[in-house]
Amino acid sequence: MNSSNTSRLSIGVFDSGVGGLTVLKALRAQLPSEDLVYLGDTARLPYGTKSPASIARYASQATRLLQQQDIKMLVVACNTASAVAIDALREQMDPLPVIGVVEPGAAAAVAARPGGSPLVLATEATVRLGAYRRAILELDPEASVMELACEMLVSLAEEGWSDGPIATAIVQRYLDELDDQANNPASVILGCTHFPLLREPISAAFDAGVSIVDSASTTASVAGEMLKSLGLINEKSTAGSLTLLATDGATRFARVGGWFLGHDLSAADVEIVDL
Amino acid sequence: MNSSNTSRLSIGVFDSGVGGLTVLKALRAQLPSEDLVYLGDTARLPYGTKSPASIARYASQATRLLQQQDIKMLVVACNTASAVAIDALREQMDPLPVIGVVEPGAAAAVAARPGGSPLVLATEATVRLGAYRRAILELDPEASVMELACEMLVSLAEEGWSDGPIATAIVQRYLDELDDQANNPASVILGCTHFPLLREPISAAFDAGVSIVDSASTTASVAGEMLKSLGLINEKSTAGSLTLLATDGATRFARVGGWFLGHDLSAADVEIVDL
Repeated sequence: MNSSNTSRLSIGVFDSGVGGLTVLKALRAQLPSEDLVYLGDTARLPYGTKSPASIARYASQATRLLQQQDIKMLVVACNTASAVAIDALREQMDPLPVIGVVEPGAAAAVAARPGGSPLVLATEATVRLGAYRRAILELDPEASVMELACEMLVSLAEEGWSDGPIATAIVQRYLDELDDQANNPASVILGCTHFPLLREPISAAFDAGVSIVDSASTTASVAGEMLKSLGLINEKSTAGSLTLLATDGATRFARVGGWFLGHDLSAADVEIVDL
Repeated sequence: MNSSNTSRLSIGVFDSGVGGLTVLKALRAQLPSEDLVYLGDTARLPYGTKSPASIARYASQATRLLQQQDIKMLVVACNTASAVAIDALREQMDPLPVIGVVEPGAAAAVAARPGGSPLVLATEATVRLGAYRRAILELDPEASVMELACEMLVSLAEEGWSDGPIATAIVQRYLDELDDQANNPASVILGCTHFPLLREPISAAFDAGVSIVDSASTTASVAGEMLKSLGLINEKSTAGSLTLLATDGATRFARVGGWFLGHDLSAADVEIVDL
């Protein structure tokens, strides 16, 4: 494929549900001319409790569907799929690029303070998979990585209660589980695609000098850099299109997805597909 | 099968996850001599987002596995499966009895105040299915049923944060969504198997005269009555056995399940099975 044709293709974004819409929002903000196709595998969420073999199969099916939409790049906006299946997805997309959410977040945390003590806030499944820990230690073997499972923050974001006293109290209660050193980490990775919605109560809980790494915007930056370096940026001057696909529940996807994207959606904006 | 032999068999309890353990706990308290077999289909939760056909198939597979364990009664300790599949499960278990969680809860609410205005607290999926509304109106066509989806209460219970200021604030925030009349319902149905863990902060939010219907203990009472009327009570004087089966995640099942059952569990207490 020649790169001037390829550059006109879309960016495919995939997640198990609506969380990856924070990555989609960051991509739209940073790459406004790009056409974007988002697929949420809402029929089979959550991926975190599934076996690695099932997750790899689901991710491959999702990627195949996005490939049929003519994409030039795949963004795996799902921590679990990034942790489990990214190598297989790179093979499947070869020679086109695949970007996960784990590596950009880890790199940004290490860049913020090499040799420091980054704190990863994530779901129980992501902590169990240890993907951020591995990615950080690969870049910075001196780092002292801390991980904290904050399951309730997912439902808090999905309920749309992203600020106010309840959000503040829940964030603080999780941080109370850490010892003193951890309460003053060098950087805090929002290691779940839902957590950028809670950036405000989370950053308020730390000293102003602590760098908050939003894996959604970090991933979007890396995607932009990658497209530039491959000569695949869409140079058109009009705004890019947005296609939303889900495997189940258009109404809920639209309602919750609206908070994540930052503007109202209706069920008619979401096309239901089979994988 | 003759009833004196049948009475020695176990009671099978089935849920998509750990929530049904509140029903199991109530069964143990009310029927201490009965042998109990619990199956949590943790590999495929949540059922609420699945299609009715899938839920019916999963529930049938779970029931078949429990039938292989020689049960004399099936308790469907899952609101979604009760709402979608109870008739098919009754056919599958025939002539042995099947009890769901919806009908006992609805009956108790109507008994507490006929013609009143019961408030159903449930998950989004249960509210969407409208099963409590239908069951209440069938018993009491004059009732003015209110339903409130309280999704965050599920993760609150699973996180083990069942009391304290966060639980109180979350319950209050949901109730704030109701108008004044609803804030003074005749009865409140805990219409999700997770919610009995939050009985304290929920009941504290209502006047003392409001009857709180715990669908777990109500279902256990109905199960006991049913066994008595069929002559199927286990008359042995020793404590009944407890078998815990799950389709995935023994460690998490044990940790969260311990809070639900009210005593510590280890992963070795949970047998992983395939459906």
